[in-house]
Amino acid sequence: MKRRSILGVAGALLALFSGMAAAQPLAITHATIIDATGRAPIADGVIVIDEGRIVAVGPADSVRIPGNATRIDKSGKYVIPGLMDANVHLVMNFDVDTLVRFNGRYDEIAIEGAQIALKSGVTTVFDTWGPAPDLIAARDRIDSGKEIGTRIFLAGNIIGFDGPISDDFHSNLKDILRMDLAEDINRRWTGGMDRSLQWMSAAEVGKKTQAYTATGVDFLKYASSGHQYMEFMAFSDHAQKAIVDAGHQAGKTVQAHVTSIESTRMAMDAGADILTHCDVSPKHPLPPELLAEMAAKKIHCSILANTKAALAASNYKELFENNVVNVRNMIAAGVPLMMSTDAGIEHPIPVKPLTPHDTVDPRIRLGEGHFFAYQALEEMGIDPMKILQMTTINVATGYKKDKDLGSIEVGKRADLVILDKDPLASASNYRAIDTVIKDGRIVDRNALPTKPLISSQKRPAAAAVAK
Amino acid sequence: MKRRSILGVAGALLALFSGMAAAQPLAITHATIIDATGRAPIADGVIVIDEGRIVAVGPADSVRIPGNATRIDKSGKYVIPGLMDANVHLVMNFDVDTLVRFNGRYDEIAIEGAQIALKSGVTTVFDTWGPAPDLIAARDRIDSGKEIGTRIFLAGNIIGFDGPISDDFHSNLKDILRMDLAEDINRRWTGGMDRSLQWMSAAEVGKKTQAYTATGVDFLKYASSGHQYMEFMAFSDHAQKAIVDAGHQAGKTVQAHVTSIESTRMAMDAGADILTHCDVSPKHPLPPELLAEMAAKKIHCSILANTKAALAASNYKELFENNVVNVRNMIAAGVPLMMSTDAGIEHPIPVKPLTPHDTVDPRIRLGEGHFFAYQALEEMGIDPMKILQMTTINVATGYKKDKDLGSIEVGKRADLVILDKDPLASASNYRAIDTVIKDGRIVDRNALPTKPLISSQKRPAAAAVAK
Amino acid sequence: MKRRSILGVAGALLALFSGMAAAQPLAITHATIIDATGRAPIADGVIVIDEGRIVAVGPADSVRIPGNATRIDKSGKYVIPGLMDANVHLVMNFDVDTLVRFNGRYDEIAIEGAQIALKSGVTTVFDTWGPAPDLIAARDRIDSGKEIGTRIFLAGNIIGFDGPISDDFHSNLKDILRMDLAEDINRRWTGGMDRSLQWMSAAEVGKKTQAYTATGVDFLKYASSGHQYMEFMAFSDHAQKAIVDAGHQAGKTVQAHVTSIESTRMAMDAGADILTHCDVSPKHPLPPELLAEMAAKKIHCSILANTKAALAASNYKELFENNVVNVRNMIAAGVPLMMSTDAGIEHPIPVKPLTPHDTVDPRIRLGEGHFFAYQALEEMGIDPMKILQMTTINVATGYKKDKDLGSIEVGKRADLVILDKDPLASASNYRAIDTVIKDGRIVDRNALPTKPLISSQKRPAAAAVAK
Amino acid sequence: MKRRSILGVAGALLALFSGMAAAQPLAITHATIIDATGRAPIADGVIVIDEGRIVAVGPADSVRIPGNATRIDKSGKYVIPGLMDANVHLVMNFDVDTLVRFNGRYDEIAIEGAQIALKSGVTTVFDTWGPAPDLIAARDRIDSGKEIGTRIFLAGNIIGFDGPISDDFHSNLKDILRMDLAEDINRRWTGGMDRSLQWMSAAEVGKKTQAYTATGVDFLKYASSGHQYMEFMAFSDHAQKAIVDAGHQAGKTVQAHVTSIESTRMAMDAGADILTHCDVSPKHPLPPELLAEMAAKKIHCSILANTKAALAASNYKELFENNVVNVRNMIAAGVPLMMSTDAGIEHPIPVKPLTPHDTVDPRIRLGEGHFFAYQALEEMGIDPMKILQMTTINVATGYKKDKDLGSIEVGKRADLVILDKDPLASASNYRAIDTVIKDGRIVDRNALPTKPLISSQKRPAAAAVAK
Repeated sequence: MKRRSILGVAGALLALFSGMAAAQPLAITHATIIDATGRAPIADGVIVIDEGRIVAVGPADSVRIPGNATRIDKSGKYVIPGLMDANVHLVMNFDVDTLVRFNGRYDEIAIEGAQIALKSGVTTVFDTWGPAPDLIAARDRIDSGKEIGTRIFLAGNIIGFDGPISDDFHSNLKDILRMDLAEDINRRWTGGMDRSLQWMSAAEVGKKTQAYTATGVDFLKYASSGHQYMEFMAFSDHAQKAIVDAGHQAGKTVQAHVTSIESTRMAMDAGADILTHCDVSPKHPLPPELLAEMAAKKIHCSILANTKAALAASNYKELFENNVVNVRNMIAAGVPLMMSTDAGIEHPIPVKPLTPHDTVDPRIRLGEGHFFAYQALEEMGIDPMKILQMTTINVATGYKKDKDLGSIEVGKRADLVILDKDPLASASNYRAIDTVIKDGRIVDRNALPTKPLISSQKRPAAAAVAK
Repeated sequence: MKRRSILGVAGALLALFSGMAAAQPLAITHATIIDATGRAPIADGVIVIDEGRIVAVGPADSVRIPGNATRIDKSGKYVIPGLMDANVHLVMNFDVDTLVRFNGRYDEIAIEGAQIALKSGVTTVFDTWGPAPDLIAARDRIDSGKEIGTRIFLAGNIIGFDGPISDDFHSNLKDILRMDLAEDINRRWTGGMDRSLQWMSAAEVGKKTQAYTATGVDFLKYASSGHQYMEFMAFSDHAQKAIVDAGHQAGKTVQAHVTSIESTRMAMDAGADILTHCDVSPKHPLPPELLAEMAAKKIHCSILANTKAALAASNYKELFENNVVNVRNMIAAGVPLMMSTDAGIEHPIPVKPLTPHDTVDPRIRLGEGHFFAYQALEEMGIDPMKILQMTTINVATGYKKDKDLGSIEVGKRADLVILDKDPLASASNYRAIDTVIKDGRIVDRNALPTKPLISSQKRPAAAAVAK
Repeated sequence: MKRRSILGVAGALLALFSGMAAAQPLAITHATIIDATGRAPIADGVIVIDEGRIVAVGPADSVRIPGNATRIDKSGKYVIPGLMDANVHLVMNFDVDTLVRFNGRYDEIAIEGAQIALKSGVTTVFDTWGPAPDLIAARDRIDSGKEIGTRIFLAGNIIGFDGPISDDFHSNLKDILRMDLAEDINRRWTGGMDRSLQWMSAAEVGKKTQAYTATGVDFLKYASSGHQYMEFMAFSDHAQKAIVDAGHQAGKTVQAHVTSIESTRMAMDAGADILTHCDVSPKHPLPPELLAEMAAKKIHCSILANTKAALAASNYKELFENNVVNVRNMIAAGVPLMMSTDAGIEHPIPVKPLTPHDTVDPRIRLGEGHFFAYQALEEMGIDPMKILQMTTINVATGYKKDKDLGSIEVGKRADLVILDKDPLASASNYRAIDTVIKDGRIVDRNALPTKPLISSQKRPAAAAVAK
Repeated sequence: MKRRSILGVAGALLALFSGMAAAQPLAITHATIIDATGRAPIADGVIVIDEGRIVAVGPADSVRIPGNATRIDKSGKYVIPGLMDANVHLVMNFDVDTLVRFNGRYDEIAIEGAQIALKSGVTTVFDTWGPAPDLIAARDRIDSGKEIGTRIFLAGNIIGFDGPISDDFHSNLKDILRMDLAEDINRRWTGGMDRSLQWMSAAEVGKKTQAYTATGVDFLKYASSGHQYMEFMAFSDHAQKAIVDAGHQAGKTVQAHVTSIESTRMAMDAGADILTHCDVSPKHPLPPELLAEMAAKKIHCSILANTKAALAASNYKELFENNVVNVRNMIAAGVPLMMSTDAGIEHPIPVKPLTPHDTVDPRIRLGEGHFFAYQALEEMGIDPMKILQMTTINVATGYKKDKDLGSIEVGKRADLVILDKDPLASASNYRAIDTVIKDGRIVDRNALPTKPLISSQKRPAAAAVAK
């Protein structure tokens, strides 16, 4: 694996960024700045950006704007940090047409997803399940400036689960796709870190994980519980510890897929940094002792927030029955929460006629899902500032990227979203995007996605029937 | 529909035909000629070809060879008419990878199939179920000399059956392919002539059929019986008659898919010219009265002959249980039989591990299947001359193409196969192909298929997994 | 088969009939008599019954009541003929619990059904698909006076269909029931007259049918079209004719299961007496020529009438899309129609949670279904007298039982229903049953069913879990 | 729960025991005694039995036979302890016919199984999954002398698994059985200790288990790993410990269903006494460290031994791929092993045609399975004395019943099998049963089962089809 850095964007000037020279500082003036540190908003604030980073921020009267700076006046607008999504799947379209037609080009779909995310203000995503080779290619092309897109960090497989064409995910595609294609797809997703590990001793699982950390993935995710039957555990206590230890030794954050009280506890005991959708615990809410320990250990939880309308139309009502109470209890207990969507892009034409489940507030639709999530959190009565932090600084902290990301502070990457309306006044105001800035460059949102493949409104290679 | 002619190959000299000028006559000399008329073989015979047709044939001492003729000495070899297959499906590969990857290009797959057939001595095929728009495109490109390939006549849909992605054929693909693709595929195959006709009155069925005859198909095929449940009838007596009459009024031969005694009888009563796989009548063999009437009416039957080994490994033993006895009885009764394979091309990598059923004597593998069929007929003890006629003159007569095709007689198209060994001595000798001639031109068999898509031995777009 | 007679009720006095001596005449007085002949109602009418038959009927002033007659004063009430249902299935509960627990006792379930029907005013049913041995046993026990119940006529199998545990009906039960049980059940229903006949020649089908007529069934029913795929035909024209001819030669009425224009026409051409649910022709209504011919030939149609509410909740909307228009057109054309329900009894506890389809106006629930059917016919705007005739005299005529049944006329069986309200004023008034009389005896409705098995409101053999 | 004792057989003299008075001592003389303690066989040995227990055992010259003893001369024969099976399922026939027909009478099926086991020399079984209320009833009737049968100890449910009609076992029966029946069956098996526990916290699981120990079960079994997907864990480390602790506090032995390295280790860590089919660890054999710890902790393993022939015909080859090597390694490491069969009784008529898997050496057929298991162990090359101990003293020790059972020693229950041939010479000699003695009484093997229900060779309630 070649080394990479989130600073790697470097020189290359992309046509997609607006024409301004990178060498020249940029000053945003007269806007209200909500820096996500928890501090009160700064009215008539100024942010100065140079070399892709924030070099100054504060009230107009306290910040000196360099003489050569380009000034953009954002009076009446609101500046917040670039939005972060703790849990996406850039390549999640499993209609077989997409699987086949773009086989060998899944990296392009990842780029398309990364651009749709960026267009909607999400400047950083954490891809927690996807085809590592393709996601790495997409990530590296974006980091190197060859493509525009959201900043990607990726986990590859959820260690312990089989690939998409399996009982863990899309069992209906087994015996449908040709063997070579099915194997290729599964291998891209699992990298060999599949259910076969469950048969191994903890020591062997640790060794396999250690090797996997060197394949270019940014962080690790493993299955504490099952995906088909979420009440089962995927790994023993020893095996979970072996995975976490191997990840930590390689300097990676490690997160666990959890869906029940005990899978949550096991992952915490094993030392996981992040618990993915820890708000999911059907039948029984997470007990107080558990929450207290999570808070004490500063374990971050990425949550899946559904609007009431979405929940009413959901096929998974039982699964989500305790999410709201868990979220409230976690906030009360002081557990740091991270906004996540589980989102990906989808083809506009479905395999089956759409049901309300698919169309009401689809949190899992990349580019829109996070707006529904904010709305859902607002419906739960969560403090607007906390909502903002859940999608910025908390995500950065959870993934240990807060040195560079997550708030508007001097020294951090200049990832910013400028809104026409106050996001603290209404969660719906996140949709009122004026400008997205990533690494100090203004994004030409109208140009995104640059090469629509599966998200275009018309089927690209429409095969008309000859007369 | 634009008019076409089997004479249309005309001028264009294809690189794939060996370099000889078409303008110059060709004389095949010193070969044994088995002309398929039923006459005894001509030892030391001569065939003279000009302008794509046979202009003279007979013993060496009775035929005058033009001075400007190119002579090719085929001493010790055997010349027979180009082989004809009464029932193929050039596009029959329903692995979804092929369906998707080549969607919009099924004509190319048809060309590939046509070349594989030609390479193995089959100079004319009758495609009895396939995507009409694509098969028409392939047929026309071959007829016009733009592509090399076997001569194609096509039916399009089996009137009354739904498309490939349906309960009539591949029900496992329903709810798997995206709706637009599934609809496109089904429409290509059915042209709208699907099960919806079964709900109509006979009069309406007749009108729909009349319109269908004008869409470029060469002949008609309809469902007398069902395909999923072969004991059911697809159409009433009146509706069958309406279909046959509409076809005949448009000058088309009409054939019926039959799989039982009564579906056979209904099709005969309706006036069908050809009964497809009339040898299939599980549980009860065709009764003598029926056979007598078929013979009296000169109704042609296309049969599916399985070797004993294939039958032993077959998944369809019950379906084929009376085929051999039916074939013998039909021969005894004087019913004219036509060899057919039901063959198509398949990708070398399967969806599921292959079973003996798929690998033992696969009659349905285009390019090989007819050889297995000849062997099967030989195993049944059928006279070698009759076997030859079943794959040449009988097919031409059944489809009313005997003015141009089916035997080595003056005035007919010069479609010939030259064998190293005597096909009357052993059916396996059909495999010993020395030369294939179509329309008077020698086929460069080594160059076929010119553009292997799904039949190539390696997956073309192999998507290697990045390290 | 032992001979039977609808007169066979004979001597035995059942406790279930009210205590009155059969030897003594009965006179119903002061009621409005609607005799179903089409004549206007007789106000203050008298009906005299003796020996199970009607011996006099007319206005009070025109009828002499024998001195020894028991008089029952029914002032203000309405007397109509006993209701007749042209199409029921007394044994139609395919929950496996019932199939197993009552295996060997299906005759008792038939009796239970017969009693539920009688209780609700239906004095005669035609069972058009069921286990012949068990239905015969039930019929004979009722006819001989050993059991009380509606008068049963039965067809046994729908010739050409496989048994209940098959793709024609309950494919989900295949490979679930033990082989011996599944075979037993299927054989009881089919009597061997299953799909295997479809593989036979018409002549053989005729022979098999001839033998079947001698097994104790009262009439014949065969499949003109399919049951799973209703657009297919089950039998050829010749085979249908062979079946009808065999039935007629044995003196049976013959009816055909039809579900499309052409299956209807084929059955009519074959000479069928009755077309079952001829109102079902999805996609295309029955064409006028067809209706005219049906009327001219006096072919009776048994129809399935759904209320608007039921149709709105139905899982079979597409199947029934033309029923209303077909019924109207048939009435206009003069086709004689017969009311039918397709009803059976069901266990109160279902296999799956009930849906609206199962609960809104369930025409197929024996004992209630006919009331919903009358309501549906009323919703269609059909003349109330015609509705009454459709469930009395028309059924009798269609089945050629009008010498004995179907109207209130001298010489006919004394099957009567006395209502509290006028059925010509509202179809809902059929529910207001005062008295049911069968064969001249007053039925003790409160005692029915005498031995509730599957219709009881509590599971009889409830297996409590031991502590 | 009423208290019970394995001494409870007490007074009642059953007709099924041979006529000898229980009050009178019994002496077996002149036999070779293999007492299963590991000591060398005693040639010409004597065993004296009184009050159901062994009161003396030794060489003829060292044992004094009471004057009033009945002597039975067993010269040339071999006496071994009554056989014990560590893992059976007396009620395991899930054909729906049996489920329905005997619903409410499963205790009778358990008795039938208990008698079939006893007849074949198995005097004690441990039922590790079954309907507790019914098994308790059967156990108590046998213990009280009301029925003859093998001695039963039972676990009820495998804690954590859903009932038989579920994805854990027979998913094909879901939506087939009526809801009330399916619920009744599932509740009988699970007693509420189903998958719902997996959603709970460890503390709650412990509480539920504690309550379950008081329902009459003899020992506990829980799911360390899954049953459908055996690589998953059913419970966390804490939850497993909570189950084991609750069992131990109630004085029960606790065993775990294990199917992989880590599920084995977790169960051992949790303190389980017995690991059920610990020899099952597909893909990877149990590692040496694990075996060493198992041996050190004296954890007993019940194993499933398959003959080579059975394995060759098995549908579960992959599951059993490491069983032989695991068994050998465990013996080498000193892990105490217990013979088990997983056996139950089955109806002679199957749901589907039998495959070789079902018929070759069916270890799971009660009454025969243990013989196949002995043969399998012999094929593995295991010392004959160890084989005997695996089916006697080891089972007793593992279940902590060795004070009363498992060897021929003074003070133990007089459970004995007398063989015609030496079991140490060949495992097949276990089949040569001369006499079975349970609790000091000679069993009348010919009378067993006394009331054959599902094991009879003919279907009892055969429902003949009426003519």
